[in-house]
Amino acid sequence: MAKRIADEIMQHSQAYENLRVLCKKVGPRLSGSANALKAVNETAQMLRQAGADSVYLQPCMVTHWVRGNVENCIATTVQGKQLKLRATALGNSLSNPKGGVRASVVEVKNYDELVALGEKGIKGKIVFYNNPMNPTYINTFRAYGESGIYRRSGPSRAAKLGAVAVLVRSLSSTIDSFPHTGATVYNDSFPKIPAMAISTMDAEWLSREIAAKQVRSMFVQTSCEMLPDVLSYNVVGVLKGRDIPGEYITVGGHLDSWDLAEGANDDGTGCVQSIEIMRSFKALSLRPKRSIHVVMFMNEENGGGGGHAYRDSARTGVGKPIFALESDAGGFTPRAIHFELPEENILKLKAWEPLFRPYGVYELSAGGGGSDISPLKELETTLAGLSPDSQRYFYIHHAATDVFEAVSKRELELGAVNMAILTWLVSEYGL
Amino acid sequence: MAKRIADEIMQHSQAYENLRVLCKKVGPRLSGSANALKAVNETAQMLRQAGADSVYLQPCMVTHWVRGNVENCIATTVQGKQLKLRATALGNSLSNPKGGVRASVVEVKNYDELVALGEKGIKGKIVFYNNPMNPTYINTFRAYGESGIYRRSGPSRAAKLGAVAVLVRSLSSTIDSFPHTGATVYNDSFPKIPAMAISTMDAEWLSREIAAKQVRSMFVQTSCEMLPDVLSYNVVGVLKGRDIPGEYITVGGHLDSWDLAEGANDDGTGCVQSIEIMRSFKALSLRPKRSIHVVMFMNEENGGGGGHAYRDSARTGVGKPIFALESDAGGFTPRAIHFELPEENILKLKAWEPLFRPYGVYELSAGGGGSDISPLKELETTLAGLSPDSQRYFYIHHAATDVFEAVSKRELELGAVNMAILTWLVSEYGL
Repeated sequence: MAKRIADEIMQHSQAYENLRVLCKKVGPRLSGSANALKAVNETAQMLRQAGADSVYLQPCMVTHWVRGNVENCIATTVQGKQLKLRATALGNSLSNPKGGVRASVVEVKNYDELVALGEKGIKGKIVFYNNPMNPTYINTFRAYGESGIYRRSGPSRAAKLGAVAVLVRSLSSTIDSFPHTGATVYNDSFPKIPAMAISTMDAEWLSREIAAKQVRSMFVQTSCEMLPDVLSYNVVGVLKGRDIPGEYITVGGHLDSWDLAEGANDDGTGCVQSIEIMRSFKALSLRPKRSIHVVMFMNEENGGGGGHAYRDSARTGVGKPIFALESDAGGFTPRAIHFELPEENILKLKAWEPLFRPYGVYELSAGGGGSDISPLKELETTLAGLSPDSQRYFYIHHAATDVFEAVSKRELELGAVNMAILTWLVSEYGL
Repeated sequence: MAKRIADEIMQHSQAYENLRVLCKKVGPRLSGSANALKAVNETAQMLRQAGADSVYLQPCMVTHWVRGNVENCIATTVQGKQLKLRATALGNSLSNPKGGVRASVVEVKNYDELVALGEKGIKGKIVFYNNPMNPTYINTFRAYGESGIYRRSGPSRAAKLGAVAVLVRSLSSTIDSFPHTGATVYNDSFPKIPAMAISTMDAEWLSREIAAKQVRSMFVQTSCEMLPDVLSYNVVGVLKGRDIPGEYITVGGHLDSWDLAEGANDDGTGCVQSIEIMRSFKALSLRPKRSIHVVMFMNEENGGGGGHAYRDSARTGVGKPIFALESDAGGFTPRAIHFELPEENILKLKAWEPLFRPYGVYELSAGGGGSDISPLKELETTLAGLSPDSQRYFYIHHAATDVFEAVSKRELELGAVNMAILTWLVSEYGL
């Protein structure tokens, strides 16, 4: 059966063409934008074409942050030269004051250095967090986790000590010229100062110039606004189970993307892989024992509204899924599937490993499911996440380079193959 | 030790910059060309900079095939329209007659169909082999092997039945607009008819038009010449062993590439990964027990002169290497290392697997070493090959798209990490 599913997908997949539509016809689709709604309609249509028994839009309230048009990050040298850095506002960041701030800049590598400088060294200044992703971590998500704290909590940590703005070295695995955005989270106790990501190339340059005492001041100006939450939708496609239709499995990815990218690997790939599970089952006339819900989650990037709404509806309505699988780590060649389960339960799953090995997944092991499905933990749903090879993800993550062309058709399909096999196994045999 | 080597490479590797030089400064480097000699000199310099105790050029006679400037593959429709297909001559093919041939075209999917048509159906015609790579083979090299027979022996098989020229569907995993070249091997018993690869997109088109009886004739014209073999070189960098300098290990890739590509993944990556082993050992002041020979082989693509010369010099001169490792399957994220060893010997190597797992290689198993080192089999050297993920390789293989930009820095380095760890282990502990 694994081979039948794999052969169907590797020969007749629609995933790549669906991804082309999401990236090129729809394009960037930040929560609350017109494009996000366009993506809702396009994927609902894809699910219908894939053969879903029913497709519905599940209402959810989502964050409505808008970047605006002004993004300035300008260094003035001691010679009076003005140099514009490649920078972009962090998601959910604000623009106080509107006219921008000019101040001297202080570089810190980490929070220890920030704390050591204290209010005396930080007050009235722009803080530049320059913490490169650790290249020796072979799992690049580990490096992202470690360096990511400066993007997430750096602005408020600096504001607490009186900083007027924050620059963060982009979370990129390489030296490139693109700023990589991503959500920051303000602590309501401190001023909400503007915060931008600068490209790693510019971060290297700025660090050198600061060390050489060549930077007189920096000017930081953004034009972001946080508008009231708006109504949006998750898209749900249902394939009814043949024996136990009341029990169901959720598989999905998230539909929203950052505004500056096509959201190809983050997470168009997870969406179209999930739709492909539906398509391949229908094409093979496979009617799984339990029902399958294929879900396009909204608002993963900067609020999580879709994931919360899905949990709420599971709690109050259709009942909890027995299992949820997410693909939100890029459309790269699959390597493993991670389960949020105690070690002894994972050991039982190891018996399935030989079914996945021919398709590139060589271990079923402990690890995170995905942020859209994580609220289902409260309902005691078993969570799992597809874990593709992570080497290329942070070259393009949250940057303008996350485009359709960065996705390999066969790698994308191979991810769908492994997701479909797992979905089938859990539907037939439970966990 | 594995972690020390890995950290050194992931932080300070020169492999990517060396690859940039091979692809962008040197460029295509077909055996016998001026660029191939330029590549010899550049990599000799890289090996010196990497810290080799000595570097020498090993003379070898190599194939000297030249494509020439004329490449025409033109379909004339029944309406008299002329349509030029995207086509390129197969490597080592000839151009008889110089003025080109015009004839009707007959499509065959495989040799069974060719044989069924027989001399009656083939004589005086152009044969179009349209055998797509099987997309259901997850190891794409398997599909390449199966469909590759038409490129290799198709021209002579058709000539035997009286065909006047051959077109071969490109060996590509996708539908693209680039012809993918590669060597063909004439059988001296039959006329050496011209042979071209056409892009998969053109193959699909041509197949449809032939089925619809829309093609009146085809015109095939190339301008290739096979000149006498010329002198060229393998490049060898030596790191002398600390305890048993007389025993040595060979690691390498091939320096030549097809003339229409930068030869990034085939096989610039194997070359620079091998040089990186030398660089990392020197940077860490590691002096291996046995000597290491880092070899840039010449003429892999269309003759194998370098591999043969290396074997001959091992037989008559320095003695046979105890172990040879080649990287010639692309610079993609590593997956496995294959050994040409009996199963029981491989079982012993399994004890080393946990050392590789953190760096992406999850199995040491049976499989081929590589074509440059294969002549060493006669000397009973143990052979091994790095086996990276194969999903993307045949998108770009032997086509103009095999460029530097198609290589991921981290993936390239991770291959070097695994090669360096294995080289170190074999040097210290034998096999």
